[in-house]
Order: sequence, then C-alpha cells, then structure tokens
Amino acid sequence: MYKVKVYITLRESVLDPQGGQVKRALHTMDYKEVEEVRIGKYMELTLKNTDDVEGRIDEMCSKLLANTVIEDYRYEIEEVVPS
Amino acid sequence: MYKVKVYITLRESVLDPQGGQVKRALHTMDYKEVEEVRIGKYMELTLKNTDDVEGRIDEMCSKLLANTVIEDYRYEIEEVVPS
Repeated sequence: MYKVKVYITLRESVLDPQGGQVKRALHTMDYKEVEEVRIGKYMELTLKNTDDVEGRIDEMCSKLLANTVIEDYRYEIEEVVPS
Repeated sequence: MYKVKVYITLRESVLDPQGGQVKRALHTMDYKEVEEVRIGKYMELTLKNTDDVEGRIDEMCSKLLANTVIEDYRYEIEEVVPS
C-alpha cells in the first residue's frame, strides 16, 4: 500500500487573489508581519500496490489533479507496510 | 524573513465528499488502485522577522486559516536569509 502526498501550487507568475484576501484579513487582525500568502491544494491518496506508482501518480496529477497551465505539482510517495 | 508552509487537512472523522468525487473520477480514468483521496489546503506564507513566529503562526492558523472544528493543521517554519 502507498500513501501519496500531493502538493499543488499556483505558478509563480500567476496572480493569487484568494491569497491576497487572506493576507488582507491577517493584516486586519494585526498580523502585519505577513508579506505574502499563496494558496494551494494538498491531497492525500491511498493506493493499492501497483507497478510504476511514480509514473501513475505523475499521470494522475497532470491529467486530473493539477491544472498544469497555471499550477505546479510535486508529490511524496511513502510505502506503507500493513502491520 | 520566514517562509512558512501550512498544511490543513480534514479531521479523520469528517467525511470528504470532494475527495470521494476525485476518487471516482480517477477510477473512471482507470486508476483503479486509488483507495482513498482526502483533499486539504496548502498555504505558503512569507513573513517579516518578528518575535515568537511559531506562536503567531499557530494563532493565525487557529483563528483564521483553519476551521478547527473540522480541520487539523500543521506547519513548517523555515528561516530565509536574504543573500
């Protein structure tokens, strides 16, 4: 079994209005030290054992999970041995 | 300067219908090895130097960034030395 953590972030060049709003909200709450907020997605997938996990995860990310026009993705794969 | 990575996940006991839909979509695309998908949020904050970064980040998470009734959060703080 595998546990996969997928991190999806907006590309550097893409504006993040939602992050801007969160930053403004934090300033209103007096957390003035916050200079930038960028918001992305985080997913945890549980997979049955299969061949070429890395290749398949990469495909899932590029075909469905991330919008590669505006988003970057990275992932960590961890093998879980059921006890 | 600090770079902070915040991970927000639904608590184990909370249903994740969005994750369920993504799992179904992956099955339709023939990624039948996917057993579970849980969707969370990922944020990157840039902070000016300040006292007690950890305490302030924890407050920001519990007061604004995460809904602690249904979500858990964790964070990683990295000090960035401008070159």
